[in-house]
Amino acid sequence: MSTITAVTTSDIRFPTSTSLDGSDAMNADPDYSAAYLVLGTDAADGHDGHAFVFTIGRGNDVQAAAIDALRGHLLGHDVEALLDDMGATWRWLVHDSQLRWLGPEKGVMHMAIGAAVNALWDLKAKRAGLPLWQMLSRMMPDEIADLVDYRYISDELSRDDAVRILTAQVATRAEREQTLLAAGYPAYTTSPGWLGYDDEKLARLCREALDAGFPQIKLKVGADLDDDIRRLRIAREVCGPDYPIAIDANQRWDVPAAIAWIQQLAPFAPAWIEEPTSPDDVLGHATIARAIAPIRVATGEHGANRVLFKQLLQARAIGVLQIDSVRVAGVNENIAILLLAAKFGVPVCPHAGGVGLCEAVQHLSMFDYIAVSGSMEGRMIEYVDHLHEHFVEPTRVEGGRYRAPEQPGSGMQMHAASRDRFRFPDGPEWAANPAARGAS
Amino acid sequence: MSTITAVTTSDIRFPTSTSLDGSDAMNADPDYSAAYLVLGTDAADGHDGHAFVFTIGRGNDVQAAAIDALRGHLLGHDVEALLDDMGATWRWLVHDSQLRWLGPEKGVMHMAIGAAVNALWDLKAKRAGLPLWQMLSRMMPDEIADLVDYRYISDELSRDDAVRILTAQVATRAEREQTLLAAGYPAYTTSPGWLGYDDEKLARLCREALDAGFPQIKLKVGADLDDDIRRLRIAREVCGPDYPIAIDANQRWDVPAAIAWIQQLAPFAPAWIEEPTSPDDVLGHATIARAIAPIRVATGEHGANRVLFKQLLQARAIGVLQIDSVRVAGVNENIAILLLAAKFGVPVCPHAGGVGLCEAVQHLSMFDYIAVSGSMEGRMIEYVDHLHEHFVEPTRVEGGRYRAPEQPGSGMQMHAASRDRFRFPDGPEWAANPAARGAS
Repeated sequence: MSTITAVTTSDIRFPTSTSLDGSDAMNADPDYSAAYLVLGTDAADGHDGHAFVFTIGRGNDVQAAAIDALRGHLLGHDVEALLDDMGATWRWLVHDSQLRWLGPEKGVMHMAIGAAVNALWDLKAKRAGLPLWQMLSRMMPDEIADLVDYRYISDELSRDDAVRILTAQVATRAEREQTLLAAGYPAYTTSPGWLGYDDEKLARLCREALDAGFPQIKLKVGADLDDDIRRLRIAREVCGPDYPIAIDANQRWDVPAAIAWIQQLAPFAPAWIEEPTSPDDVLGHATIARAIAPIRVATGEHGANRVLFKQLLQARAIGVLQIDSVRVAGVNENIAILLLAAKFGVPVCPHAGGVGLCEAVQHLSMFDYIAVSGSMEGRMIEYVDHLHEHFVEPTRVEGGRYRAPEQPGSGMQMHAASRDRFRFPDGPEWAANPAARGAS
Repeated sequence: MSTITAVTTSDIRFPTSTSLDGSDAMNADPDYSAAYLVLGTDAADGHDGHAFVFTIGRGNDVQAAAIDALRGHLLGHDVEALLDDMGATWRWLVHDSQLRWLGPEKGVMHMAIGAAVNALWDLKAKRAGLPLWQMLSRMMPDEIADLVDYRYISDELSRDDAVRILTAQVATRAEREQTLLAAGYPAYTTSPGWLGYDDEKLARLCREALDAGFPQIKLKVGADLDDDIRRLRIAREVCGPDYPIAIDANQRWDVPAAIAWIQQLAPFAPAWIEEPTSPDDVLGHATIARAIAPIRVATGEHGANRVLFKQLLQARAIGVLQIDSVRVAGVNENIAILLLAAKFGVPVCPHAGGVGLCEAVQHLSMFDYIAVSGSMEGRMIEYVDHLHEHFVEPTRVEGGRYRAPEQPGSGMQMHAASRDRFRFPDGPEWAANPAARGAS
């Protein structure tokens, strides 16, 4: 038996705004940041649980304070009791009635609970000596179904539905695990498409993406229509008429503007249009989807919880569902969303990039492939090539595919040296640069 | 010209969990709390801007930290520039791209921005020497329309729509102001209906509500069906067959359970069913509304932003719209919601109670009556009779009606002595009671 003996949070920020990596129509100057959590225990195995919430700069301190507010829920608690019934642990954290008032189940407090949940999963996987994707994929349908809170989604997904979906994949899991280990999981890259890049850099990066074997790229749009047309034309010229090019408006438009703008870009045959409007606007996405068919609508990186995803599916508002590893309340809630997507037959193509999001979310897609949807068809994980060097097991993308992680844990552990160097505002990277510190 | 010279936040909590005032099916033991903000200036007039976010205990420190994170946006800024164009001020705060990531437009960070917005409105009204309701009601349609951000709602409400709605009421504003000053605004009371009260206390409080002239009461339901039936029968016996009795499930049910449970309570002819399920579930509320008609569905106290309210109206999911003064981003966003409700012809019956919510939200309903909907028909403000003594201008409810506030400002200012006494965890009320401190 062991106990949680340390709950350590830190505010870690990378000064990405200086290079315009990550610039889009809504986020002109992000400083990619992590509100980081380490759970320490008194077990002799030496394993800690690591997790973080990704933010883009200002407010990362608020996010860290929210994680810290869970100290009383974690410190001194029996680790085995928490890890042995992660479904109960999730419900206990999410349904704390006083903390729930701060959402409910959305925003800073919900993401903080997600960090606690994810850190416990990291610890559980390290103790099992398995990467998270593999540990989850080896759990039995009943065990997985018990991780999900069906509250507010039972009209579309019952526990019986979940067991049925999961059981259908059991006999062929081993085969898919072999395929995954041998061939990896498809990736697409957003690296060419940031708004801050000039045309020459765009063309060069498109060519590099093709040469690297990526089966799809994505371009940011929505700031200026003429620019979007010119940039899409360049990308089409480089990539050819049949290569999938997705576009991403980062919530820039209202519903009528989205429809009008996308119709102007339709000749370039985008693979999907991502975040055309407010992530909360289920009915708006449905209206857009009907108007622009057969172009598919994609959203989800800012989807606050499983209730929103249930509705996007019910309303036939999305053709591509994009989970994010740190926006909802951790692994459990993402499993609920993967099950909902499987029930509706909608492919899941996760949001990634930022800092550590590729490292984290790949585990969920690989679990989805082996145990939930059973398919890679039409499924890809976003890939952006920066900040991976800060992680203990950086993603490996080869030939346009994510290689399956091999180290035990959830992939969210950042090197201690990076955490120290980029700690805000007193780490050496920020202490040496007071001007940049002022902007964040 | 003056400058914001002080941004002071505090964590104020009232140990209400000891009395079970405020107990419902989801919130068993709330400690009513306020994450409180005071904006000080260097103007000679001595006016401060006061506002708060209401929470129910744990996490109130996180909410205060989020308000404090806006210090850089406020301190040293030109007060007149902020107050003269409150529409621009709202957009500047809400569309800070880095802070926006933490919602977007929902949860802790959005409510923190709401507190900053509301404190500025308090200051503006004090400078004008008018209660907020009166100052707003005297603004011209164009000015009011400029307070609203139409982003994400323009498919249902354009600036032209807003001006049209507001202009239609201008000629008769003065008449309604006289009516309001003479007769007040209808209130309904939730005081009889908390789940923690026994049957005898329920019957006594129902009788007292009738005697006091309240045109409606509300009972909490959703914990136990037999208890609900027994309690509704008692209330019906005391109040008679035609007296309006609303019921409130505080998000307790899933969609199928809500429909089944409400059908069991239908013989008691509830005036509305409030928060039957997750506040995010637009489609679920619409399904419930269709199934239980003509009983009306009400929701909104946990509605995160105007995009949610737009959809509840589009989907015909609600017959009663319940704004809250501190859940969305302050006065401006609530004006957007009042305008949407007027466009759809749905009455607004605000959520209140907690601490200071009655004091704050009455201004919005009175403004709605004079300048937006132009009607009190089917409209009432919730009233709960506790914690009013802590406010500089406590609500006056007489004969079941709110009297119009008379003092300049937004009504959100709490006595300094109360703020000191209930400051958590070091104010005298908490310092003297370590056991209660542990629970919060």
